[in-house]
Amino acid sequence: MVITCQINQQRLWNTLLELGEIGALLEEGTTRLSLSVEDLKARQYVINLMKEAGLKVRIDAVGNIIGKLEGTVKQAPIVLTGSHIDTVFQGGIFDGALGVLGAIEAVRSIKESGFQLKHSIEVVSFTDEEGTRFGTGYIGSKAMAGELDEATFLLTDANGMTYAEAFLQAQLDPRLYKQAKREREELKAYVELHIEQGKVLEEHQLPVGIVTDIQGPIWLDVVVKGHADHAGATPMYMRKDAALAMAELMLDIEKIAKMYDGVGTVGKVNIEPGGVNIIPGLAAFSVDLRHINKESRTKMMNEVYEAINRICQKRDVHAEMDMKKAVDPTSCQVEVIEVIEESCKELDVPTMRLQCGAGHDSLIMAKLTKMGMIFVRSKEGISHNPKEWSDYEDCMIGTQVLLNTLMRLAE
Amino acid sequence: MVITCQINQQRLWNTLLELGEIGALLEEGTTRLSLSVEDLKARQYVINLMKEAGLKVRIDAVGNIIGKLEGTVKQAPIVLTGSHIDTVFQGGIFDGALGVLGAIEAVRSIKESGFQLKHSIEVVSFTDEEGTRFGTGYIGSKAMAGELDEATFLLTDANGMTYAEAFLQAQLDPRLYKQAKREREELKAYVELHIEQGKVLEEHQLPVGIVTDIQGPIWLDVVVKGHADHAGATPMYMRKDAALAMAELMLDIEKIAKMYDGVGTVGKVNIEPGGVNIIPGLAAFSVDLRHINKESRTKMMNEVYEAINRICQKRDVHAEMDMKKAVDPTSCQVEVIEVIEESCKELDVPTMRLQCGAGHDSLIMAKLTKMGMIFVRSKEGISHNPKEWSDYEDCMIGTQVLLNTLMRLAE
Repeated sequence: MVITCQINQQRLWNTLLELGEIGALLEEGTTRLSLSVEDLKARQYVINLMKEAGLKVRIDAVGNIIGKLEGTVKQAPIVLTGSHIDTVFQGGIFDGALGVLGAIEAVRSIKESGFQLKHSIEVVSFTDEEGTRFGTGYIGSKAMAGELDEATFLLTDANGMTYAEAFLQAQLDPRLYKQAKREREELKAYVELHIEQGKVLEEHQLPVGIVTDIQGPIWLDVVVKGHADHAGATPMYMRKDAALAMAELMLDIEKIAKMYDGVGTVGKVNIEPGGVNIIPGLAAFSVDLRHINKESRTKMMNEVYEAINRICQKRDVHAEMDMKKAVDPTSCQVEVIEVIEESCKELDVPTMRLQCGAGHDSLIMAKLTKMGMIFVRSKEGISHNPKEWSDYEDCMIGTQVLLNTLMRLAE
Repeated sequence: MVITCQINQQRLWNTLLELGEIGALLEEGTTRLSLSVEDLKARQYVINLMKEAGLKVRIDAVGNIIGKLEGTVKQAPIVLTGSHIDTVFQGGIFDGALGVLGAIEAVRSIKESGFQLKHSIEVVSFTDEEGTRFGTGYIGSKAMAGELDEATFLLTDANGMTYAEAFLQAQLDPRLYKQAKREREELKAYVELHIEQGKVLEEHQLPVGIVTDIQGPIWLDVVVKGHADHAGATPMYMRKDAALAMAELMLDIEKIAKMYDGVGTVGKVNIEPGGVNIIPGLAAFSVDLRHINKESRTKMMNEVYEAINRICQKRDVHAEMDMKKAVDPTSCQVEVIEVIEESCKELDVPTMRLQCGAGHDSLIMAKLTKMGMIFVRSKEGISHNPKEWSDYEDCMIGTQVLLNTLMRLAE
């Protein structure tokens, strides 16, 4: 097959900027926590765009938005592509959005070219990839892979709203989540276009890269309980300062991550009661541990547990740990990697193979079907930040590679 | 003078419990941040109680509530006594309140006994001792001592309300704050009854103690700015994690405080953006440093500054420090100490002299007049906590000692 079909670059760029405006605050980036008012508005934008593109749109039981381009052979397994449109607090306009909007643009261009493909292509905008609001992510992809835990619906956000309530507010029935599950036989492959969120492509001066392995994150919630006392009247030796125990663990996590060549982060912290002149009686914080090797990650986690126990004993405080998420690291399918590589070659796009440090819906989708990922260069590797940026050119090249890849997979 | 006048114990206890109910939440203690709705309600309670006690009540320009028992000689310098009724987040029912309610009960009992004193006695409930809401305290006593900085009114609370706006909401005109200043010549002495907030009296099994020295706190606001990046895609060596810089400083402050035999606390922490999978780009936190020796405290502070600079350089982050408060440590007046001691002797109350670790309005009042403090035993030394407790017996003994002290000073 010789692919002559081209994406409409300006149209794609416009949709990136338009979607980026939803939930945007001057200099504070874009905030669209999953199923928030802003996310619901963005979801409607995507639904409208899919319809405009001529796709058949449906919302599955967990709110995944699915736009379908029918293939000529109804029974042929479907090629999936997509990403997510929810964001972290004050995130950027490319993370997730490029994968959804790029996929819509690619499929729209294929449709407009009049080219007939044997396999249907479905563009998916997955519900709650980031997990920022309720503390656990990949909700849409997990439900599709039959891996969603029912207990997820009992989680609460910062305002005390349960996940079940947020579902109802979004006109979704949490009891039906199992209906979102897809069968392995229905699917041919899943390809995700995403910004790199790292600096490897920038260092190599390459517009796009092909992912080989994805780190799996472990998320822990830790609550340390000490004793709140007066900051003036309590001598140092008598204190049970929960925040100092946390501080010590934070530095240990840094050491552990360096030692194992993984990454470890404490990103979310809450100290109570939170008065200038009160010794913290409680410290609640998140721990994020990642490694492309599952065994190494387990070792990292064990060391974190040991550190907590040692610190608690020393400081006479008590800790509770709750594992919120544990996603296995995974590898991309060689078959899909090769199709992407071929697409780059026919487009004369210089590229490289690289690892992926962030978690993605593709991690989950790998359990269901053959998975591959196309990375687009990120400026300074910044993401989850208002300064997140990928150049026009790079977004266009990445999306064109996606188009060619989809046509090859669906031909 | 033989003092036969006795306080009404049950009446005092009832007022402690009643005032403690204002701003109380089940198992979460009492929260009456200064000039909040709860504090305004409590202020009205105190005004009513002073009137019931037969005192002449006035509110000065910064909201200090002053109830006066007239002496027989109008020009004789006034004996002051009191404390505060604002609290920290989730505080107890004794800190501050005992000093105000105990003073009202003592003066009420003197009035009821019909005993005529030469000097007038004024009971003061000082505005905003804790400083929890706007980050700086001793507002009422500072204004009375002519030490209030006009810039205080520009400070904002967590909701962005300025101190000036809070004043207006409480029907106070911030422009008039200088009118609250008192002259040294008008005053004879200031005596404050307060719970110890430490365990020294408990260890010595004594109901009350007599303060000799008061630690002065320094409060710093620190903001560390690093870089928010993706927690998965940013290798450890490339990070500028603001929270890790904070963690390192917290442990250094602990070391510095131990080394100088002072105390140091980080009680208030805010991490941004605050996502599980985002490296903290900003860490804002408070530092509270105290010592009874000013020189040692200065050394502690210098070491904290050095530590911050060293950590910032090492981690390639940037810190801004803002000194919110610096109150000199002070000593109580020997003359007042001796009157309290004499009062204990005549009441057969066993007592001891001790230092004070917490800051009080008395610290400020010492600049204006002769100052003394009576401490009441605290259960387990706990304060600024829902579990703060002083036994009925101890509160009564402390208040009776205050009554005798006031009569001796005002006779």
